[in-house]
Amino acid sequence: MLGNSLSISKEYLKKVIKPGDTVIDATCGNGLDTLYLKELTGKEGKVFGFDIQDIALENTKKLLKEKGQEENVFLTLCSHSELDKYVCEPVKAVVFNLGYLPKGDHSITTLPETTIVAIEKALQILIPGGIISVMIYHGGDSGFHERDELIKYLERLDNKRFTVLMHNFINQINYPPILAVIEKKK
Amino acid sequence: MLGNSLSISKEYLKKVIKPGDTVIDATCGNGLDTLYLKELTGKEGKVFGFDIQDIALENTKKLLKEKGQEENVFLTLCSHSELDKYVCEPVKAVVFNLGYLPKGDHSITTLPETTIVAIEKALQILIPGGIISVMIYHGGDSGFHERDELIKYLERLDNKRFTVLMHNFINQINYPPILAVIEKKK
Repeated sequence: MLGNSLSISKEYLKKVIKPGDTVIDATCGNGLDTLYLKELTGKEGKVFGFDIQDIALENTKKLLKEKGQEENVFLTLCSHSELDKYVCEPVKAVVFNLGYLPKGDHSITTLPETTIVAIEKALQILIPGGIISVMIYHGGDSGFHERDELIKYLERLDNKRFTVLMHNFINQINYPPILAVIEKKK
Repeated sequence: MLGNSLSISKEYLKKVIKPGDTVIDATCGNGLDTLYLKELTGKEGKVFGFDIQDIALENTKKLLKEKGQEENVFLTLCSHSELDKYVCEPVKAVVFNLGYLPKGDHSITTLPETTIVAIEKALQILIPGGIISVMIYHGGDSGFHERDELIKYLERLDNKRFTVLMHNFINQINYPPILAVIEKKK
């Protein structure tokens, strides 16, 4: 019943996103989240996707094509810290899946400095009632630095404007990812 | 949408408890959880309730009577650490609301030693797929000792048998309670 960080994130996104909404996948990776977001926003909705690796956007495009879900998906090869250059409209949800590309080069990872800039920009265009889901990988070859910096940042978010809820599976081996969900108050 | 620790706990309990189930309120307090559990288990279900304070059980009885929900509720004036003496049958859910009695004597509080014994005993009679919800108060005049001892204990629970998920609102003032949910694997 409790599931895992991914199933919890998907449940929140499903609750919040309605057909026709505009949303962002801040870390396309292999496209699984992009596809899920596209399915939730439907034909009329828009998904903006970002990644700094060519291979990630190629994999994402391929997956969307396979599933017939390419329409109204806008992929950009750049850091999510520049998302404000490409998305000017209000968004209902933003998804961050931090760390390295699954099955990719483990030396290319998200960094707390740019992740925090990206979250900051995402919060500005987030619709009240909208959410940002941040999957934080830690331990193993991800280390703890990004997790610790992010948590410090999230703890300081204005409680009058935002609610931050952390989900942490604490008795598992191999450091399962921590899920942070930020809601903009209405 | 994110709600608070209490609304999240209630949502989990609602998902898991079916009419006819047997459940435990390990800390009756003023009876709000006992009443909620009784409503979920229905006429045929059983609720065992514990508290170490007379006034708590009186308030609980009064509330249940007011709402016409006294049937099949078994209240015992003793520590939840002795719950095994009163409940021998398998249970679907157990609720702990730690700390002191709301509006009561702040010097009478739950203690990590007895709370951990109680959780240990509750885990033994928990049905696979069942849950234990633990609301952990900290900060203010509750201190951090019980929280820290409990988290150390929960981190060590056998991951092959149990999943432990912590919910923590990290950017709020006044230390909102942390919710721990333990699920027994099927």
